[in-house]
Amino acid sequence: MTRVRVDLNISLDGYAAGEPTAEHPMGLDWDRLTAAYAATRTFRRRVLGETGADGTTGVDDAYAAAYFEGIGAEVMGAAMFGLHSHPHDPDWQGWWGDEPPFGCPVYVLTHTAPRPPISMANGTTFHFRSGSIEGVLAEAVEAAGGADVRVGGGVGTARAFLRAGLVDQLHVGIAPILIGGGARLWDDLRGLDRTHQVRSEVAESGTVHVTFTREAATA
Amino acid sequence: MTRVRVDLNISLDGYAAGEPTAEHPMGLDWDRLTAAYAATRTFRRRVLGETGADGTTGVDDAYAAAYFEGIGAEVMGAAMFGLHSHPHDPDWQGWWGDEPPFGCPVYVLTHTAPRPPISMANGTTFHFRSGSIEGVLAEAVEAAGGADVRVGGGVGTARAFLRAGLVDQLHVGIAPILIGGGARLWDDLRGLDRTHQVRSEVAESGTVHVTFTREAATA
Repeated sequence: MTRVRVDLNISLDGYAAGEPTAEHPMGLDWDRLTAAYAATRTFRRRVLGETGADGTTGVDDAYAAAYFEGIGAEVMGAAMFGLHSHPHDPDWQGWWGDEPPFGCPVYVLTHTAPRPPISMANGTTFHFRSGSIEGVLAEAVEAAGGADVRVGGGVGTARAFLRAGLVDQLHVGIAPILIGGGARLWDDLRGLDRTHQVRSEVAESGTVHVTFTREAATA
Repeated sequence: MTRVRVDLNISLDGYAAGEPTAEHPMGLDWDRLTAAYAATRTFRRRVLGETGADGTTGVDDAYAAAYFEGIGAEVMGAAMFGLHSHPHDPDWQGWWGDEPPFGCPVYVLTHTAPRPPISMANGTTFHFRSGSIEGVLAEAVEAAGGADVRVGGGVGTARAFLRAGLVDQLHVGIAPILIGGGARLWDDLRGLDRTHQVRSEVAESGTVHVTFTREAATA
């Protein structure tokens, strides 16, 4: 059965980096927020494409590997695709390179005029949708064919799905740093710990991995 | 050498409970925030005075025991003593009972007219001070006689000392709950992870214990 998953790196004070800018497309502090993830063997091999690369193989890597497992479709916000930074470039194909690390249909949420889909080399096709998040999610679930749907981000998109009660599993990798500003994940999410079970684990890097999993409904 | 320590229970979204009210003197959600701490053997024996009581003896209890070790003086805000709830009662002695769990001089920060000190049964004496936090801390350090000084709270007082760079060790017990509002600990503390080393540990209860320890100065 398809689960809807969210997977983010945040700081101890709850920020998933700032708004993207041209100079820092993923926001200031992104490197520090994702340092432990970027050091994993999974990231280096799977995202950077460094075949046979070394990298950490501990707790962080287990979560990095799980990130890619069982995903049949992805939903992301316009900013994560870079539409906000390239609003007038009809040829913009995102900043994920020629072989985006998705390998599945990706639904990009946008309020601007729809664009034709973009098919990439490795099975990734970007679709642009301006409907409700519930409607786009339904389409993604259909496309996933029984596998999971990941709501990839950014944090505003993730929060919209979380607040709507659409997320079955939320994993956050909490870097032990205090950023002091940016896009907060936790606002308005009071009670998520009542509908979801919470499990925490500390990685060798000091990253605290916290996972919220929706409890099975009692019929 | 005296260290200045702060020790708080917060939620995953960074709240140390709301402002105290008559009905909830320690703020709404206090019970949930402190449930793991209140379940420890140390709390039951040391704070509740239940001699020989049971209680958890795992990771949470180790931190609960450390909370009481080596403290020679305490500093707390007026709200934590209850002055804000009882501003017109000159006989108010705090809500810590006849045997407050301090056993040392306690300096209560207040902007209202100074009160005479209150000496309790077990070596606890409450002093009321309206000077700068640096000045009150200096007096507390002197009184501690080489032992540590704890800045007990509430969160506003703790943040004032943290922002002024006066805290050598910050321990937070992070309950895996999302409160969604109240008094935030983390605002304006960017960079604390650069002056302090951060260590994290997950307790059997699911509480995540994070400790910031000031790195030794390199002369």
